[in-house]
Amino acid sequence: MDIVLFVFDDMTALDLVGPMDIMALMPGAELKIVGQNKGPVRAGKGKRSIGVVADYALAEVDSGDVLIVPGGMGTRALIHDEAVTGWIAKIHKTTTWTTSVCTGALLLAAAGVLKDVPATTHWAAMELLEKLGAVPTSKRVVEDGKIITAAGVSSGIDMALTLAARIKGEDVARAIQLMIEYDPEPPFNSGNAGTVSPEIRKLAVELVSAR
Amino acid sequence: MDIVLFVFDDMTALDLVGPMDIMALMPGAELKIVGQNKGPVRAGKGKRSIGVVADYALAEVDSGDVLIVPGGMGTRALIHDEAVTGWIAKIHKTTTWTTSVCTGALLLAAAGVLKDVPATTHWAAMELLEKLGAVPTSKRVVEDGKIITAAGVSSGIDMALTLAARIKGEDVARAIQLMIEYDPEPPFNSGNAGTVSPEIRKLAVELVSAR
Repeated sequence: MDIVLFVFDDMTALDLVGPMDIMALMPGAELKIVGQNKGPVRAGKGKRSIGVVADYALAEVDSGDVLIVPGGMGTRALIHDEAVTGWIAKIHKTTTWTTSVCTGALLLAAAGVLKDVPATTHWAAMELLEKLGAVPTSKRVVEDGKIITAAGVSSGIDMALTLAARIKGEDVARAIQLMIEYDPEPPFNSGNAGTVSPEIRKLAVELVSAR
Repeated sequence: MDIVLFVFDDMTALDLVGPMDIMALMPGAELKIVGQNKGPVRAGKGKRSIGVVADYALAEVDSGDVLIVPGGMGTRALIHDEAVTGWIAKIHKTTTWTTSVCTGALLLAAAGVLKDVPATTHWAAMELLEKLGAVPTSKRVVEDGKIITAAGVSSGIDMALTLAARIKGEDVARAIQLMIEYDPEPPFNSGNAGTVSPEIRKLAVELVSAR
């Protein structure tokens, strides 16, 4: 089973790696890390980044059982890149499951995959998702047929456990959850944009701008 | 502020990337990704792996404000590698905070950093941690002076938010939690080895062996 993961400059590494490490524990899974070109991209920006290697270029991969598209600020340029959006549309036609994490949903939408489809993304990108033709839905994980979209960054973990259960059954998903010891104990209660103070929202946006 | 992250073959990518993406949002943070050699390592194994680039070799980095050591099956060989454990011991002497995620704690222990220190690791490695001289402690995040250890894989997210609060204050940590939308909704309740069935524990171990 080919798990196709798209990587690009200024993606958010956690969007990718949460689902990746979950899929990697599924019996029969093979990961294909695909970039615009073969070789390393930088996840994040400048001195806040890490190199992640694309093992395949877009042109080398034309199908997949599962597509996973992560997000990050780099998506803002790529939604206008027809080589990327055309490739996503092409892979989507071949998949059993098409998924995104965070603003990866913007790339799915720009590829035409989310036209009138209920979907979610990072809380700061919901308006843009709507402009791109999707039906913004405020849930952490949104399923619509073979398409599963997740909210911001860390939600990819919840999405991928849901996906593993759909593909291999609940026992395998539970065993994976145990292996990654996903028994969360957030030290604060400020992960939900609907309930935090305006000051924390403002500070969060400033932290990203300051990178 | 230098955030030094150690990378190696068959590490677990999520151990690294959870804390990395949290530290990357801290004002003033600079990441240094360090490997035994400069260049890519493979996080995970074979067709279940991803290339992650070490921007620095061990010999090029001799201090750091924060040290983050991830885990993974690759730790089992590295605990006997004195170039690695010696480097960890050296960096630890210079840090404000020394941290590990998952079986990264085995590397800290092998480096002598956890001698008689309360610490945690992945649930399947607690006995080995004790053999290496630490005091195994069944908590998700264990703080002891400047040393913070986290339990398995995903617990690095909880650890790093705690760390961000210690370094930059709770408001910054809360803003980071919001930016990574860490408002977990695990689809199952099987992330804790103390409460799952023996069958799920057995299956979890089999999934790793089958990689």
